[in-house]
Amino acid sequence: MRKDALDIFWAGVQAVEPEAAVRRYCRQEGNRLLVHQSVYDLTEFEHIYVIGAGKAGATMAKAVQETLGERITEGLINVKYGHLAEVSRVRLIEAGHPVPDEAGLEGARAILDLASKAEKGDMVLCVISGGGSALLPLPAEGLSLQDKQDTTRVLLACGATIHEVNSVRKHISRVKGGRLAQAAYPATLISLILSDVVGDDLDVIASGPTVSDSSTFQDCMKIFNKYGLFEKVPKAVLNHIQKGIEGVVPETPKPGDPVFVRTKSVIVGSNLECVVAAEIKARSLGYRTLVLSSMIEGETREVACVHAGIAKEILKSGHPLSPPACVLSGGETVVTITGQGLGGRNQEFVLAAAIGLNSQEGIVVLSAGTDGTDGPTDAAGAVADSQTIQRAQALRLSPVDYLLNNDAYHFFEKLGDLVKTGPTNTNVMDLRIMLVA
Amino acid sequence: MRKDALDIFWAGVQAVEPEAAVRRYCRQEGNRLLVHQSVYDLTEFEHIYVIGAGKAGATMAKAVQETLGERITEGLINVKYGHLAEVSRVRLIEAGHPVPDEAGLEGARAILDLASKAEKGDMVLCVISGGGSALLPLPAEGLSLQDKQDTTRVLLACGATIHEVNSVRKHISRVKGGRLAQAAYPATLISLILSDVVGDDLDVIASGPTVSDSSTFQDCMKIFNKYGLFEKVPKAVLNHIQKGIEGVVPETPKPGDPVFVRTKSVIVGSNLECVVAAEIKARSLGYRTLVLSSMIEGETREVACVHAGIAKEILKSGHPLSPPACVLSGGETVVTITGQGLGGRNQEFVLAAAIGLNSQEGIVVLSAGTDGTDGPTDAAGAVADSQTIQRAQALRLSPVDYLLNNDAYHFFEKLGDLVKTGPTNTNVMDLRIMLVA
Repeated sequence: MRKDALDIFWAGVQAVEPEAAVRRYCRQEGNRLLVHQSVYDLTEFEHIYVIGAGKAGATMAKAVQETLGERITEGLINVKYGHLAEVSRVRLIEAGHPVPDEAGLEGARAILDLASKAEKGDMVLCVISGGGSALLPLPAEGLSLQDKQDTTRVLLACGATIHEVNSVRKHISRVKGGRLAQAAYPATLISLILSDVVGDDLDVIASGPTVSDSSTFQDCMKIFNKYGLFEKVPKAVLNHIQKGIEGVVPETPKPGDPVFVRTKSVIVGSNLECVVAAEIKARSLGYRTLVLSSMIEGETREVACVHAGIAKEILKSGHPLSPPACVLSGGETVVTITGQGLGGRNQEFVLAAAIGLNSQEGIVVLSAGTDGTDGPTDAAGAVADSQTIQRAQALRLSPVDYLLNNDAYHFFEKLGDLVKTGPTNTNVMDLRIMLVA
Repeated sequence: MRKDALDIFWAGVQAVEPEAAVRRYCRQEGNRLLVHQSVYDLTEFEHIYVIGAGKAGATMAKAVQETLGERITEGLINVKYGHLAEVSRVRLIEAGHPVPDEAGLEGARAILDLASKAEKGDMVLCVISGGGSALLPLPAEGLSLQDKQDTTRVLLACGATIHEVNSVRKHISRVKGGRLAQAAYPATLISLILSDVVGDDLDVIASGPTVSDSSTFQDCMKIFNKYGLFEKVPKAVLNHIQKGIEGVVPETPKPGDPVFVRTKSVIVGSNLECVVAAEIKARSLGYRTLVLSSMIEGETREVACVHAGIAKEILKSGHPLSPPACVLSGGETVVTITGQGLGGRNQEFVLAAAIGLNSQEGIVVLSAGTDGTDGPTDAAGAVADSQTIQRAQALRLSPVDYLLNNDAYHFFEKLGDLVKTGPTNTNVMDLRIMLVA
């Protein structure tokens, strides 16, 4: 069953591997380019530019190049240091992540210039993936990278919602909140997006550079007012927002704005696709399956508690389905750190689930990050079964103490139950697998 | 849909109403008494005694009396003050709950005496329901009620698990941990149990007065040692445990003990039965249904977050089932109180779910205690839909502030969305209903 769980995990990850994901949604047939449900006549386009940013940028570019080959005029994509692939017609610019740096800034400026160069008879193909926000850092005119970072920090510290943080970020950027689409207009703009956010909202992924933004400069000022940030936000940022309200700086493009007439955005990979691919694999292995949700959020150990409750009910009464059962869920939980240990949300999930299941026979729990990493560790996650707690006790490890210390890594390391995959070159958040037989 | 949610809730509660629950599992046909899958020839029993304790004791007694009528020789049941019903052949003794009192102690002694009076050709019918532990307080010889209470308090304060607390409580009681079965032996002993604990473990409900106990006096000493309680536990309790280890005080009866040869325990009502009855009702109203689990535990607002994630996925992709959908869950969550407000876990669940769903259309969430109460309030729970957050904002109520202050009662009171049922005379923990259309 442990092997089954790993096989199911890999089936999920393979389905959202960037090359496979791009090829599934974007392919050339003769002179036609098929992008999801749209068809583009390639003879109508003079230039095709490939731009974008994100941790999966290199492999996405590779898939695009294999599709369009010689038709690509020029390309520029910001990627994370070391996240490269063999591409000849697209230039990869290595940049800082998660902290943006000058290389990213230079790259972003070049990418914006390339988009601006595109004209009506041109096509701009934009590939976006996780990390695209930090990897495409271009502050609005008159603002520095430091101004942007200070603003984000102040907002996060005051308890603003992620929606509020994003509204402000979009209004102090030259690419986010649809600004990149503004630059590409009037060219045809196609965005291929690998989603790393819960719910796959297009205006949230990489702060929505190619889609409309419904927030306003006025909203930003209200947010500063609501949290009393007038003294804390950099002066230059306040001035910029004020100029926006006065109409001196133009608004981000709103829904229905003409810049979006020739744009198309396609999510080529998402957590749900990963979960569903895992489900298909589980079925082929003989399990009854239940996809709980790809949008699971919340405090990790409590989410684990709910999962344990479901597994126990399966064994007790055959609800919501009878064994052999595979329950799958995805999304991204949080860990409120109170201890000094080492771990990640996936490892903590498995530890808390193992405690909640209390050595109940016939259950295997695996949780891992689809990008192959989990917190600041070299593991992607962990796997546990009914023997885990007993084996820990035999080694005189207290599962509860390890959990309270947020030290799941060392717990599972001692048991040999870490899941290590190495980088997978994709990222659609986490995949959790519970097998009950 | 709000009306549907309420109808589904009531269908669940009615299925575990004590009279209905007892009658479903225990009925007389001529000279035969049918108890679940067993048949008893009533001509073989000289006396039939009815004993027990719990908040539903009166209504359970009424059902037993309607079944056995004149055949009941004598009966004694400890019930909570005011929780009465019309019964003539069983005497109801009102006692303190949740804090045990002298009346409960007197009653427990009389009940133990009645059980002891039963002989081989007699039947003892024991009805147990929520609150049965506090309502049947009889400390072991040489110990006072105060000793027992002090011990429990010390154990809870030191962080002992509920399993450890129960092990000790069973060893300082004259009724818990199978002691009541010891007293009834060699009579035939039938226990009809309405479960108010997650998982329905017989040795946990009311501390298992009629079933075997696998913990030992030695275990109790280990627990005291583990948490360093030798100075904190009352001297009399330590002495009693020590006498048990030395064999001066007899152990609780273990699995396989001869006292259990003529015993039978039947769970006549449980959270799962309530959830499944609610499911049947939901189906009859046209919903596709999913019973998530009757064993959901964890921090309430995080559990709500998981439920919200499931509802969002139903709307987005039709997983785990497509609308119109009804997701049901039961069990008992906890609330870590950090605010000063008024509420209960059900009201807090609904508030947190409403926040997580963020005004998404087509969703109704209801959560309520099956006993008709929720925390220290006069409501059983609350109900919310996609308008809830907007209506709150129109009234200038901040949902998040109310949640942070654990003040769900006042939030829903102002919106008119509390669910008030009055006492239902049953208790199988909570029922949560999510409708997605």
